[in-house]
Amino acid sequence: MLAGIDLGGTQVRVALARSDGQLVGSFKTKTPLLGTPQRMVEWAATEIERNRGREKVRSITIAAPGPIDIERGVLVNPPNLPGWHNVPLADLLHRATGARVHVANDADMAGLGEFHRGAGRGTQNMVYITWSTGVGGGLIINGHLHRGAHGTAGEIGHMIIAPDGPLDNCGQRGCLEAMAGGASLARETGHPAEELFRAAARGDRHARAVVERAARYMGLALISLTNAIDPELFVMGGGVTRSWALVQPTMLATLKSSPFIKPARRPLLRRARLGDRAGQVGAVEWARINQ
Amino acid sequence: MLAGIDLGGTQVRVALARSDGQLVGSFKTKTPLLGTPQRMVEWAATEIERNRGREKVRSITIAAPGPIDIERGVLVNPPNLPGWHNVPLADLLHRATGARVHVANDADMAGLGEFHRGAGRGTQNMVYITWSTGVGGGLIINGHLHRGAHGTAGEIGHMIIAPDGPLDNCGQRGCLEAMAGGASLARETGHPAEELFRAAARGDRHARAVVERAARYMGLALISLTNAIDPELFVMGGGVTRSWALVQPTMLATLKSSPFIKPARRPLLRRARLGDRAGQVGAVEWARINQ
Repeated sequence: MLAGIDLGGTQVRVALARSDGQLVGSFKTKTPLLGTPQRMVEWAATEIERNRGREKVRSITIAAPGPIDIERGVLVNPPNLPGWHNVPLADLLHRATGARVHVANDADMAGLGEFHRGAGRGTQNMVYITWSTGVGGGLIINGHLHRGAHGTAGEIGHMIIAPDGPLDNCGQRGCLEAMAGGASLARETGHPAEELFRAAARGDRHARAVVERAARYMGLALISLTNAIDPELFVMGGGVTRSWALVQPTMLATLKSSPFIKPARRPLLRRARLGDRAGQVGAVEWARINQ
Repeated sequence: MLAGIDLGGTQVRVALARSDGQLVGSFKTKTPLLGTPQRMVEWAATEIERNRGREKVRSITIAAPGPIDIERGVLVNPPNLPGWHNVPLADLLHRATGARVHVANDADMAGLGEFHRGAGRGTQNMVYITWSTGVGGGLIINGHLHRGAHGTAGEIGHMIIAPDGPLDNCGQRGCLEAMAGGASLARETGHPAEELFRAAARGDRHARAVVERAARYMGLALISLTNAIDPELFVMGGGVTRSWALVQPTMLATLKSSPFIKPARRPLLRRARLGDRAGQVGAVEWARINQ
């Protein structure tokens, strides 16, 4: 058996699967209810033990927010999990379950989930982008997750897109996240991003202009990624994609506006299919690949 | 035996190698002297035949300027080879030699050459950038050349780096090539790029400012590539790198200015080692890999 765990700031989700990756069940709870890493590990181990049937769970992957030390399986200091500093998550869960445990970047895992079981099925070169409060991503190169030399590939949100733009939380000026991330749009407009997108959907002119500008920057990032990496497909997830009809046309028009990217090599742009389940599904796939 | 051919606008170079990739000889001539694709093929076939000794040449790669139809081995309409339209180069050379012939992008081949036999030896994830009149590149991902879904990966020069910047020849506004390519700097200053770099080396303030701004944009591209791809090494070739002492400090300072890219994951930046031979050396490697 395999397990995939998606550890987010609001929810923890566990999926159990057969060793071929076929899902057999899933469970979730609220992260703040568990509170500490130790209690999260105990909860996950108990749910896995209770539901595994007769087969042993041999391989588990935990999808977690970065930064992560993927070699040692340690959460470093995730902004979305305050108080979780230098948590040796792989060791803790290994001791509780006996399984081989990997910790992986949550956006990488969501990308891997979409690639194997969602909007990216059948492709070989795919860029997954999660667009919500922040902007992240994961790269599939020749059918494999590309994690990079230090496990930090796919940080799409921190590509520089407008060198004179505002300062992002990351300390860089004019990165994609600063130009299009939900937190940045909220800071700029003084309203939560959800409200901004609702106002844009209602036809509010100012909100619409802000959303379109953000979608245009995202489209420019698609141009840069197409030229650098040459994927066949972009898959986009995250909260902003709930407003797909508002952002997709501008992103696609921006991508099409590049005369350098001829139609024959222009990647498709698809909305993610797995929603909140992408991370756990990808974590199961990573557990399968690394079992 | 293997052969690698580097077909440039000014020179054609042929390298012969044993089937393990060990070079045994090389020849060159001026492209305009040959004039037509047919005569270039005859010249290359004759040189190969005359120098191959007893062994048959089984696999040849031609490194050529894009755009290329890599599937069919056809040069489409390379700007540096005026009059060479839709040339079925692989077919022509196959008929003349009997060898299996591949046509590949010249920047990809230069990157592959540096990876196997130059500044990139011993790495697994490397981005090669050629900075001269234009800006191009090639990606090595997990030890393999990444050509992308349509064979056009590594078009580093056409990442958007300043959306309100000048229009490039490619039709995009503010791509890296428009902000830092030699042709663009020459257009801006009214002097050939070589003169500009000589003036900067002499200490001319205006020239120096132009060169430093270009190097800063190149550094921003290095930040974007680091965040997207997470390589361990950048290798940079091309004419501008003859002025390495002028451009390297600004590029490195820009890369280091990103607080998001911690020193532990900051790629190294090295000058290419193979000079003009990178393309033919990479072409031999590609011929070896595809023999």
